Amino acid sequence: MGKVTVIGSGSWGTALSIVLADNGHDVRIWGKNKTIINEINTRHTNSKYLSDVTLPETIIGFEDLKEAMEGIEVVLLAVPTKAIRETVVHLNQIKQEPLTVIHASKGIEPDTLMRISEMIEGEMLQEKLKGIVVLSGPSHAEEVCLRHPTTVTAASFNIKEAEKVQGLFMNSYFRVYTHTDVIGVEIGGALKNIIALGAGISDGLGYGANAKAALITRGLAEITKLGCAMGANPLTFSGLSGVGDLIVTCTSVHSRNWRAGNLLGKGYKLSNVLDNMGMIVEGVSTTKAAYYLSKKFNVEMPITNALHGILFNSENADEAVEVLMKRIGRREAPFANLF
Amino acid sequence: MGKVTVIGSGSWGTALSIVLADNGHDVRIWGKNKTIINEINTRHTNSKYLSDVTLPETIIGFEDLKEAMEGIEVVLLAVPTKAIRETVVHLNQIKQEPLTVIHASKGIEPDTLMRISEMIEGEMLQEKLKGIVVLSGPSHAEEVCLRHPTTVTAASFNIKEAEKVQGLFMNSYFRVYTHTDVIGVEIGGALKNIIALGAGISDGLGYGANAKAALITRGLAEITKLGCAMGANPLTFSGLSGVGDLIVTCTSVHSRNWRAGNLLGKGYKLSNVLDNMGMIVEGVSTTKAAYYLSKKFNVEMPITNALHGILFNSENADEAVEVLMKRIGRREAPFANLF
Repeated sequence: MGKVTVIGSGSWGTALSIVLADNGHDVRIWGKNKTIINEINTRHTNSKYLSDVTLPETIIGFEDLKEAMEGIEVVLLAVPTKAIRETVVHLNQIKQEPLTVIHASKGIEPDTLMRISEMIEGEMLQEKLKGIVVLSGPSHAEEVCLRHPTTVTAASFNIKEAEKVQGLFMNSYFRVYTHTDVIGVEIGGALKNIIALGAGISDGLGYGANAKAALITRGLAEITKLGCAMGANPLTFSGLSGVGDLIVTCTSVHSRNWRAGNLLGKGYKLSNVLDNMGMIVEGVSTTKAAYYLSKKFNVEMPITNALHGILFNSENADEAVEVLMKRIGRREAPFANLF
Repeated sequence: MGKVTVIGSGSWGTALSIVLADNGHDVRIWGKNKTIINEINTRHTNSKYLSDVTLPETIIGFEDLKEAMEGIEVVLLAVPTKAIRETVVHLNQIKQEPLTVIHASKGIEPDTLMRISEMIEGEMLQEKLKGIVVLSGPSHAEEVCLRHPTTVTAASFNIKEAEKVQGLFMNSYFRVYTHTDVIGVEIGGALKNIIALGAGISDGLGYGANAKAALITRGLAEITKLGCAMGANPLTFSGLSGVGDLIVTCTSVHSRNWRAGNLLGKGYKLSNVLDNMGMIVEGVSTTKAAYYLSKKFNVEMPITNALHGILFNSENADEAVEVLMKRIGRREAPFANLF
């Protein structure tokens, strides 16, 4: 069995560590929060992010990243988008074998409009990089810890690297598909958080399931359009990392982006909502990034546009949703311009 | 403003009557149940199917279909799949102008494997038929009655007929897209009920949102494959009548197919479940039809297959779901054989 270092001791990094440990791998987990690392080693729990979960004892917490990376060839980054660059810089400073870097982050860098794998590739010393694999799909950490059936996609331009990751994670409750459309998988995973914010707002305003389904469907259409303009395959968005992740994020109260949107829909101010969440709400900065991507690639994205107005220009959520509904075109052919 | 006769006084026929009445049309509603027709005329309610809803007074109930059809050029059928043929035979017996027939039914005829519009076209005297339009999309009747935002698709091989229906129904809360892919819209609307049964079973077994999202995503893939083999456009399934309707049916407790599946997942027998529902559960006969369609068109449909085993061969739901999860392929390319 192999050895994997997981960087990030939040809920997702910890849940993925459990999957790896269940498969017999030695798992080293590193995170900034020393209290959590200490708790993982002494009590085999991570009560801040995953209450009621007992971790396998083969998951070992490390306070020192250099030590955690000794003899390691596969590293998993499970950190927020804004922590990706500093993590890679940290890895660059450590002498090591070329790495397969798996990332499980869902976002776009607001200033550069880069996808996560582009950030990693740009920042990492090339002689230390063997391959990059994105792991994405409909997967609440809490359910993975219960070993409930979960399916995800492992995507890499190099299918061999994706298959390596599939081999590490695949088991009876955690099913891994491989894919080569890195752009589509990353764009789908990042932008679904915008639609989740919108779905939360719709629910917070008291609209029903019909309105939310319309929002998700039209959201999928605009994500697909942007993704294709960026070079993705439109069919990727019909898969697990597209519509699958969109459904789970928009319809579950576990989703922090949905919860944030729900509070916005109930009339709370963005700053108060973010203060109260206690976790990063990736959808907020992704909305800003997608807003500029839609301009850069000249793609109409009415839902992203409406969210941008609500989040950054203090526009009224109720009015924005009404405008959205009335804006709906007369002919349903969202991808007519693609084929 | 126009005149429309609605055949079927269930929840959906009544809700669509309200939309038409809100748009200023004279609406005549005909149904078999004379108590309901009488209640519509005297109390302006339909308490059996839509409690707490007051109907506009311009909706008039008719006991005699011939009378209801006098001077009518547009008729809306909102009856179960198994009542389509007898309704058309009834219409054939009435002397009238050529009709635009709108249908809002979601099913496949089990014995002939025909779509609803094929049944109507085959059964109706050709000189009485001007056009057929299918109205489909994510739309719980209860929410339409609350005038909550709802979007649907009106599809016809003749776009002019679809636009006529769009003009009748479109208003500020009920948005209608037109479409020409009748096959795709009908197949999506019918087969989503199979996946809703599966989603209910998954929830009833105690699985989580990850499993349900996987089921919906893979369900969408197999519906799309079958639809394409039958001549549909794959992109139709990414729209309101495909993924939109799938989401609303699989994630809302309003859905009778989800509720039936949920009871099956909890261990109840099919016959008991159907007895207790009090309304037709279209997904059950649609599963049988889709099972034979998959053989006829030589398309692999693992979820439909599993549901068929549970419903008609008394297979164990828990084991069937487990087999499904393990059956998942290694490479995510659901439509690879289509392009």
